Amino acid sequence: MEYFKNVPKIKYEGPESDRPFAFKYYDGERVVAGKKMKDHLRFAMSWWHTLCAGGSDPFGVETMDRSYGGLTDPMEIARAKADAGFELMTKLGIEFFCFHDVDIAPEGKTFAESKENLFAMVEYIKGKMAETGIKLLWGTANNFGAPRFMHGAATSCNADTFAYSAAKIKNALDATIELGGQGYVFWGGREGYETLLNTDMALELDNMARLMQMTVKYGRSKGFKGDFYVEPKPKEPTKHQYDFDAATVIGFLRKYGLDSDFKLNIEANHATLAGHTFEHELAVARVNGLFGSVDANQGDPNLGWDTDQFPSDVPSATLAMLEVLRAGGFTNGGLNFDAKVRRGSYTFDDIAYAYIVGMDTYALGLIKADEIIRDGRIDKFVKNRYSSYTKGIGKDIVEGRATLESLEKYTLENPEPVMESGRQEYLEGIFNSILYR
Amino acid sequence: MEYFKNVPKIKYEGPESDRPFAFKYYDGERVVAGKKMKDHLRFAMSWWHTLCAGGSDPFGVETMDRSYGGLTDPMEIARAKADAGFELMTKLGIEFFCFHDVDIAPEGKTFAESKENLFAMVEYIKGKMAETGIKLLWGTANNFGAPRFMHGAATSCNADTFAYSAAKIKNALDATIELGGQGYVFWGGREGYETLLNTDMALELDNMARLMQMTVKYGRSKGFKGDFYVEPKPKEPTKHQYDFDAATVIGFLRKYGLDSDFKLNIEANHATLAGHTFEHELAVARVNGLFGSVDANQGDPNLGWDTDQFPSDVPSATLAMLEVLRAGGFTNGGLNFDAKVRRGSYTFDDIAYAYIVGMDTYALGLIKADEIIRDGRIDKFVKNRYSSYTKGIGKDIVEGRATLESLEKYTLENPEPVMESGRQEYLEGIFNSILYR
Amino acid sequence: MEYFKNVPKIKYEGPESDRPFAFKYYDGERVVAGKKMKDHLRFAMSWWHTLCAGGSDPFGVETMDRSYGGLTDPMEIARAKADAGFELMTKLGIEFFCFHDVDIAPEGKTFAESKENLFAMVEYIKGKMAETGIKLLWGTANNFGAPRFMHGAATSCNADTFAYSAAKIKNALDATIELGGQGYVFWGGREGYETLLNTDMALELDNMARLMQMTVKYGRSKGFKGDFYVEPKPKEPTKHQYDFDAATVIGFLRKYGLDSDFKLNIEANHATLAGHTFEHELAVARVNGLFGSVDANQGDPNLGWDTDQFPSDVPSATLAMLEVLRAGGFTNGGLNFDAKVRRGSYTFDDIAYAYIVGMDTYALGLIKADEIIRDGRIDKFVKNRYSSYTKGIGKDIVEGRATLESLEKYTLENPEPVMESGRQEYLEGIFNSILYR
Amino acid sequence: MEYFKNVPKIKYEGPESDRPFAFKYYDGERVVAGKKMKDHLRFAMSWWHTLCAGGSDPFGVETMDRSYGGLTDPMEIARAKADAGFELMTKLGIEFFCFHDVDIAPEGKTFAESKENLFAMVEYIKGKMAETGIKLLWGTANNFGAPRFMHGAATSCNADTFAYSAAKIKNALDATIELGGQGYVFWGGREGYETLLNTDMALELDNMARLMQMTVKYGRSKGFKGDFYVEPKPKEPTKHQYDFDAATVIGFLRKYGLDSDFKLNIEANHATLAGHTFEHELAVARVNGLFGSVDANQGDPNLGWDTDQFPSDVPSATLAMLEVLRAGGFTNGGLNFDAKVRRGSYTFDDIAYAYIVGMDTYALGLIKADEIIRDGRIDKFVKNRYSSYTKGIGKDIVEGRATLESLEKYTLENPEPVMESGRQEYLEGIFNSILYR
Repeated sequence: MEYFKNVPKIKYEGPESDRPFAFKYYDGERVVAGKKMKDHLRFAMSWWHTLCAGGSDPFGVETMDRSYGGLTDPMEIARAKADAGFELMTKLGIEFFCFHDVDIAPEGKTFAESKENLFAMVEYIKGKMAETGIKLLWGTANNFGAPRFMHGAATSCNADTFAYSAAKIKNALDATIELGGQGYVFWGGREGYETLLNTDMALELDNMARLMQMTVKYGRSKGFKGDFYVEPKPKEPTKHQYDFDAATVIGFLRKYGLDSDFKLNIEANHATLAGHTFEHELAVARVNGLFGSVDANQGDPNLGWDTDQFPSDVPSATLAMLEVLRAGGFTNGGLNFDAKVRRGSYTFDDIAYAYIVGMDTYALGLIKADEIIRDGRIDKFVKNRYSSYTKGIGKDIVEGRATLESLEKYTLENPEPVMESGRQEYLEGIFNSILYR
Repeated sequence: MEYFKNVPKIKYEGPESDRPFAFKYYDGERVVAGKKMKDHLRFAMSWWHTLCAGGSDPFGVETMDRSYGGLTDPMEIARAKADAGFELMTKLGIEFFCFHDVDIAPEGKTFAESKENLFAMVEYIKGKMAETGIKLLWGTANNFGAPRFMHGAATSCNADTFAYSAAKIKNALDATIELGGQGYVFWGGREGYETLLNTDMALELDNMARLMQMTVKYGRSKGFKGDFYVEPKPKEPTKHQYDFDAATVIGFLRKYGLDSDFKLNIEANHATLAGHTFEHELAVARVNGLFGSVDANQGDPNLGWDTDQFPSDVPSATLAMLEVLRAGGFTNGGLNFDAKVRRGSYTFDDIAYAYIVGMDTYALGLIKADEIIRDGRIDKFVKNRYSSYTKGIGKDIVEGRATLESLEKYTLENPEPVMESGRQEYLEGIFNSILYR
Repeated sequence: MEYFKNVPKIKYEGPESDRPFAFKYYDGERVVAGKKMKDHLRFAMSWWHTLCAGGSDPFGVETMDRSYGGLTDPMEIARAKADAGFELMTKLGIEFFCFHDVDIAPEGKTFAESKENLFAMVEYIKGKMAETGIKLLWGTANNFGAPRFMHGAATSCNADTFAYSAAKIKNALDATIELGGQGYVFWGGREGYETLLNTDMALELDNMARLMQMTVKYGRSKGFKGDFYVEPKPKEPTKHQYDFDAATVIGFLRKYGLDSDFKLNIEANHATLAGHTFEHELAVARVNGLFGSVDANQGDPNLGWDTDQFPSDVPSATLAMLEVLRAGGFTNGGLNFDAKVRRGSYTFDDIAYAYIVGMDTYALGLIKADEIIRDGRIDKFVKNRYSSYTKGIGKDIVEGRATLESLEKYTLENPEPVMESGRQEYLEGIFNSILYR
Repeated sequence: MEYFKNVPKIKYEGPESDRPFAFKYYDGERVVAGKKMKDHLRFAMSWWHTLCAGGSDPFGVETMDRSYGGLTDPMEIARAKADAGFELMTKLGIEFFCFHDVDIAPEGKTFAESKENLFAMVEYIKGKMAETGIKLLWGTANNFGAPRFMHGAATSCNADTFAYSAAKIKNALDATIELGGQGYVFWGGREGYETLLNTDMALELDNMARLMQMTVKYGRSKGFKGDFYVEPKPKEPTKHQYDFDAATVIGFLRKYGLDSDFKLNIEANHATLAGHTFEHELAVARVNGLFGSVDANQGDPNLGWDTDQFPSDVPSATLAMLEVLRAGGFTNGGLNFDAKVRRGSYTFDDIAYAYIVGMDTYALGLIKADEIIRDGRIDKFVKNRYSSYTKGIGKDIVEGRATLESLEKYTLENPEPVMESGRQEYLEGIFNSILYR
């Protein structure tokens, strides 16, 4: 059965095309910066928003029909979702997908039944993967949606919930391994607090680390060679989430000795919520050697919640791809659309339009980032700007020979430092002239 | 004396030019949408940030030398500033300027002396205008900087301050008229409150209106035919400013019968601070028939203060110019750069770079807005989207024939409304494909 | 059947009581500022969050059982909700309630069936009201939750949806009148836009006004003597809501001639989202003569969405009650708890705890606001601060005798204005010393 | 000479006193939680805002006379400031102060001259300390105000500026040691970036660490036994400051091996700017064993810049003091008022009023925090809430015996976790009933 009936196989037609179902910039086979675009971008479809979510929000019910032709049996729906997902990925030329356990298989009445459903669907999906060549980017467990997680998962005040969380992660990780996934993500949707009045933060943080440590141990024992990721987010659903931003997560990973197994999965929208730019979060991960993967959905700077919009902000995508290129590109990671169409964009066609604008946005970001690097003016400016650290007193500082005393002596003997302009407006002009040419 | 020594006459060289002192997009004589770009955009230089401000911020002293060659006499500095300003405008091809009274002439020891200084500089500037053909866009009085305005100007608790404010406005308006200005702006930098604990809001709002009413009466009596403007801003320096945003100002103008003499001067950065997009504020002004003029400086969505950056955000400029074109373009208004270079961009060259990126940004915004209109897909979509109001029950509603009873009857007799997708992602794709081609 | 089984009749026991199910500050019969506390505060229970909402959020399913003992028939549930609501109000001593049409009666398969359900429940509730003496504060229609409102109600692009909205309002208003309600509220949950790319703002605003005008006409024709209210909110669910804040709504009401029939229903949480304090919004309504009613639920200044928390912020409640007292107190309005317990507070006991903390917070706010007024220091300070407007040049200004010319003459003849300190820190000290004694 | 002429020695008079120059809550000798209030709170006066700042803001000049009787010689002014400061501290009963190098001594024409000025003033202040018994809480260097720091201090692109910064720190630390200071603070006012386009973040972070490492080495070599502190702040003046918040700084300190010499100096206002509550930042420092000192000035949740208000928010101060008590109280740290009066509160009297409200606010916070602990209900609730980790599977988890496999086995063998309510509203009620009794 065809679900995206109006949607043809989407092809690259170039910016001048006015056909809605066509890529204007994304041409997967085109070589940019030494690699095919598709290998740079490693686009992934997320199961949840694309195939499961129905458009409800805190003020309204679902607008989207996700019954896949009026189905009611949960396992039948799960298979239909898989069929629809692979159909969509095939039509879009997307080569990876991501899943939560509960996205691909319905929860049963008991944990045992849920587990059974999960592995039944793993088999089913394995078949679809074989048929299409589509691969798993990463898997994860939804340890935030059900009432048992109302006070957290690893950070729950209830040890039974911790145990349940661990059990779910075990199965989700097994499923990930079984499907050849190259990554496993922790997004701690309820790992945080609502009020310090009822919270033991010290225990919760330790427990959060404990579950990650157990997972690494288990995963490595099962031969998992991929990356574990933490996905930073500052708030929502909880008032304060422990994985606030990249710097917070990196500090946490170091504190608990997790930084050689974990990397970061950075989401644009979560950067916005934390008061950062997307490229800032990527740069923080990069300079700490912990850049891993990306959720490309964007937010709205005027809105204080997770809008999870499909990306359309080309300047932001360009700055993001600059960071990705500078970090050496993706290895196990990729560019996942953790995004949802607006509630009023309720048709299957809209999902295709949304992926097209998102993929085109990052294609353009890649092309432009590469042009900026090849242009060279910005990089040269930066190199020159810090050149005082490559000689004289600057070299002494960087190479550890300077002390407060030696630097005071230098300062007493030398005139006031001569400053150079930071030239920000000039650099913004260069950026724009490359973006819009 | 030449102040911007490194800066040549800036010419249009096109996007491929890598010469820093060149326009990549702005070509004043090029005809777009039936008019020359320079007549669409009516760029204006603002005296204050460009010629007066020295780069101090709450955490640091000035970084920029604004002594114009080591001058110390205030009137000499004022003349040098004027010379430098007209030099810069001439080099950039900017045909308008804006001023505060205290920007163009130093305050004296007494009000009388300040007045004398002001009109001496009016004469001087008149000479520069005649030489160059550059015109005044609008004038205004700085009724916020001096200690006497610490509790407001028109909204001060001190009637003597109200009087002083009125006296300053009289002279600033006289100067504006004398220089042939087409607009006079009210920006109420201290018209607001710090705490309700010491504030009589009702009196303050009435007094704010009283001063505007007096000003209109006086200005019209002197033959001023131009527009009065209010510039909305939500906060900073005061905790709450009465001119919060476009909708608030429009409500105020209507309440006090000022809406036939006043229009709005919308600033991008102030929109951001109010939690709006720039295009939203412009649209609100437009649909209320009160669109007037624009301050084009942008903010930073991650920062909560008035950064007054030179604009570089092309998508935002495009959406803004769409609104300007839909409002019929500027009549008396124009596009003023109420912007300052960053504190670290402390040279005169940086000022030129900043204007170049700003002017190019709006040039591109105009070009792209015109392309969007000529492309027609978006406008056609919108027209079609609301077509149900051009016939049947929709027409009855719009033309005033419907009642709750008639609409209930209609609803009882008809099936559930059939919804169409809002197609936001598709439209964002069109927008991008026009922006980046 | 008793639903709040653990909850006894809540009585005033004073601040020293450590019994959870007791008021510490609220003593309905105590006379404060010349009236019983209950008549000042006119507390109302909101149907929706209290009786209907199940604790779902964008990241998790419901945690609260709202089946009222495992019921499945929608009308049975509706009656059980009414029973539970009246039980709770009786136990708490709350004398008013508020409803949306869909809260009190389930939607049917057709509009006609929904209408029938509604009026069946109106009869049922009328019986409960007669039994208990509890009154209706205001009613409203939920014109935002169903898919037909995805693009707005009065501001929908679809005229059929406009008609449907009007029909729902007609019935909700009829129900309000039938139940003796003293108010009818418009909260435009979808009256706004997601993107200007697909929006005709001018038509949408006109249509929003048209529906209000029709409603006033209809209501008055049916003998409704109460107040219509608009409830401002800046965003969520839509990106921009037309009823952004008090000033915006007041401007809208004036523009469309609605200001003699409408007042404002101010919500604390919505003030926060708009970047205002709660007391600011109340003051704006007051000085414009449009203060009506209050939704007392608070937000979290660090979160960007509508948390709808039960109020516990006593300083804020005190400043709010100061405004309410200065506005002359409630007439038809009251203090509604549009609030929900946190998702992790999922028991019926928590609902009672939440109302207790909320009612105590406002009781304390009232007591303290009255003490501030009786103390007199703050009011005296303010009166004195503006005393320059009661004589001399200030009186001339206020009474319309001053002109720019006369004020310039005054300024030329008088010395620099002598400023007095605003004494904000001193006033904050007084405020605290009254709050904490 | 007496500077605060209207200000008497401030005494505790209790909440019922209506004398402005009196403490209503702060009674330094009163014993609370086993210690005198003054030893708990260790209040400190900050030199800069109290004695130096003149009330300028980005939109207006100074309103406050800081010439100390018309002085013009910088060293004379410096001595007068010291006199005024010790007079104020004596009158307020404040036993500590804090300084930046440039607050206590004017910068000279050369670095050598600045150094001479500094140590001349150190001698002068030493005399005042001996006279009054007032002690130094901590010292610091202002490495952000002068043009040489426009691109950062340790993170400057200019190695000469790095050297200059080091030299200044050497002297400020020497001065701190000389004055018996127990702490030395790094607040990196320009340690951040304006745009990634011109920034080498990796080098900048390494250099920031290098300067701290040098400082520790130097300080310890000079016998400094006190604490080094970093003061987190997310932004302003730079767009992004590297010391964003407590978690970020802690991660940084750990990364560079600085966490045994450094602690955190947490500022309430900076927490607000980072999107956190003040108590959150304190809790993060506490659970990481890095709680050090406090800047008590508060911000305004509706404003996006550093307002540095004197604290008046008692609920916040109570939650903060709860964290301070839980961290074991201050050792070397204290409670510094890094606060300024509002620009309109321009008299010396206002400074005294401001300190009074600030000290009373924290006195009340301490009293109430102690009452909450002695009341015990909240702590008991929390202890009980996490009790599942003291036995059975929870104990296995905490003590490292659990694995994913063992936890899956447990989950398979046990029923769905049974959740308990988080009781947030109930706990908020307890908090309020203690605060307002």
